[in-house]
Amino acid sequence: MKNNRNRQVILKSRPADIPQADNFEIVESDVPDLRDGQILVHNIYLSVEPAMRGWVSSVANYSEPVRIGEVMRSFAAGEVLQSSHPDFNPGDKVMGLFGWQEFAVVGPAAVTRKVGEADLPLSLSLGVTGINGVTAYFGLLDVGQPRPGDTVVVSTAAGAVGSAVGQIAKISGCRTVGIAGGPAKVAQCRDLFSYDAAIDYKRDDLASALGAACPNGVNVYFDNTGGTISDTVLRHLAVGARVVICGTASVASWDPWPSGPRAERHLLVKRARMQGFVIFDYAPRFEEARIRLAQWIRDGRLRYCEDILDGIEHAPGAIAGLYRGENAGKRLIRIR
Amino acid sequence: MKNNRNRQVILKSRPADIPQADNFEIVESDVPDLRDGQILVHNIYLSVEPAMRGWVSSVANYSEPVRIGEVMRSFAAGEVLQSSHPDFNPGDKVMGLFGWQEFAVVGPAAVTRKVGEADLPLSLSLGVTGINGVTAYFGLLDVGQPRPGDTVVVSTAAGAVGSAVGQIAKISGCRTVGIAGGPAKVAQCRDLFSYDAAIDYKRDDLASALGAACPNGVNVYFDNTGGTISDTVLRHLAVGARVVICGTASVASWDPWPSGPRAERHLLVKRARMQGFVIFDYAPRFEEARIRLAQWIRDGRLRYCEDILDGIEHAPGAIAGLYRGENAGKRLIRIR
Repeated sequence: MKNNRNRQVILKSRPADIPQADNFEIVESDVPDLRDGQILVHNIYLSVEPAMRGWVSSVANYSEPVRIGEVMRSFAAGEVLQSSHPDFNPGDKVMGLFGWQEFAVVGPAAVTRKVGEADLPLSLSLGVTGINGVTAYFGLLDVGQPRPGDTVVVSTAAGAVGSAVGQIAKISGCRTVGIAGGPAKVAQCRDLFSYDAAIDYKRDDLASALGAACPNGVNVYFDNTGGTISDTVLRHLAVGARVVICGTASVASWDPWPSGPRAERHLLVKRARMQGFVIFDYAPRFEEARIRLAQWIRDGRLRYCEDILDGIEHAPGAIAGLYRGENAGKRLIRIR
Repeated sequence: MKNNRNRQVILKSRPADIPQADNFEIVESDVPDLRDGQILVHNIYLSVEPAMRGWVSSVANYSEPVRIGEVMRSFAAGEVLQSSHPDFNPGDKVMGLFGWQEFAVVGPAAVTRKVGEADLPLSLSLGVTGINGVTAYFGLLDVGQPRPGDTVVVSTAAGAVGSAVGQIAKISGCRTVGIAGGPAKVAQCRDLFSYDAAIDYKRDDLASALGAACPNGVNVYFDNTGGTISDTVLRHLAVGARVVICGTASVASWDPWPSGPRAERHLLVKRARMQGFVIFDYAPRFEEARIRLAQWIRDGRLRYCEDILDGIEHAPGAIAGLYRGENAGKRLIRIR
């Protein structure tokens, strides 16, 4: 690939809270030569996700922060162009931690998997059959443990994770209530993702809307937001409720650490459980989830929505856009 | 019992937060006649416990609040004087919800159990083989799920529940760290209850003392206090930690609802679980716990401390005294 130039998005400065376009810079370099055991991946789709705020934060986290000057950490999906590893061949479709760049020279540890579902679009491997889908699957089923008849409430209900959570809860025999921001997302919740009720937290009074939508209380709350939305949902827990902490997207900064109404009394009185999870802990079980997710998609029981931006020049501002809620569905950058 | 007068402690007014002596009044009345199926119990020990604050509070709770003018709800232990129920005979030792009064005429539903451990003091049925012991047992073993080698941190570590938690954790092969207030309780933690480390939260810097006592983080936190002590412990959780919410004794009032540092991010980053429980949910399994607790006491592996006040006139002020931390061990009123 001597003649190929590689456009890369690097982290230029550490954001105080939500990463903005000017925290990144697009640079060009040569694609390095392959060493033994490495592969050259030509990226087609780059992923954009809320967790990236944590990946570039210096605050204690579940992974090392991306260093200044380093290519932005990201999942991406693409095609193997060259291989010096016996398990990979040119033409293989792969998904993994290839970063925000056009070409990635990586070892096998960076590859999450070869994408085998040739009948499904490759982009889904970054969304509903990828990290978002498996996050919804294990977070809901393993941590949330829904039972048929339960009322399951989901925040960022039209998002890449939330929309899958709502539909998997429905498949599990639950009543589903989605919380989303704005009429377009609420309509998506109802019409595309089959929620039994959808609440616009920006327009409705969340507490009274929740009370009306959940007359017997909330059995499972899949929490993508944290913050004041969660504070309100916690006041509506049913006895024995499970709160799944998947993300804290609505909290702009953890430095200084923000305060909110104390949760411990709700958990005590309602004998409720609040549990965080990090999806990478489930890596050994991803295949189980993918097989079921793919089948639900083929059966038309699991629908998805993608928000695709064309061109790597959209990557730097794409995280901030997510936090402004401007995307409709799983946000991706298509670069080929 | 026509000739017997009954002294009773009734709830005179609803406290704003912690019940004080003047929220109660001691009145005298005749002991009513037994109806069919009832028993007359002569109370010997009345229990005093932190949960009583909740029982007299109008804020949403796990049981109906005690009504104004009603005898204060309480566990008590005593002797059956008369019985018109086939399962009870005069002379039986019984423990149950007999209230803060000398004589109780009750149906069998009020009786928690006949106290069979004739070799152990009757007062223990209100403490270490009673509600405190079973609370420690199920809260730690069932909710906290300690594993050998875990570091278990307990707040109000010298208290009636906490001291049993620490010792059961030790029996389970854990390292135990107690948090208590004042040098006397800290000494009790070390010398009587065999904690591996004990921290005086009033004198030590809790964060640095916890850091030193828990170099690998906290695997199980048995939380009797809530509030700022818990806020500090949450910052020291190990990956996969379990936080058992047993009580919120350090929070003076929930009306208005207090704020504190948000917990959700700790739970997410540490894949930790925070779970409340209410011991009455475990009632069908109490006997299992009592048998093991009694055996540990006989074996000298489970020690206890009682703080006994003599005379029913001490009852009204006894809850406030608990919250001031003036008791050493399980607080009881002896009235015979």
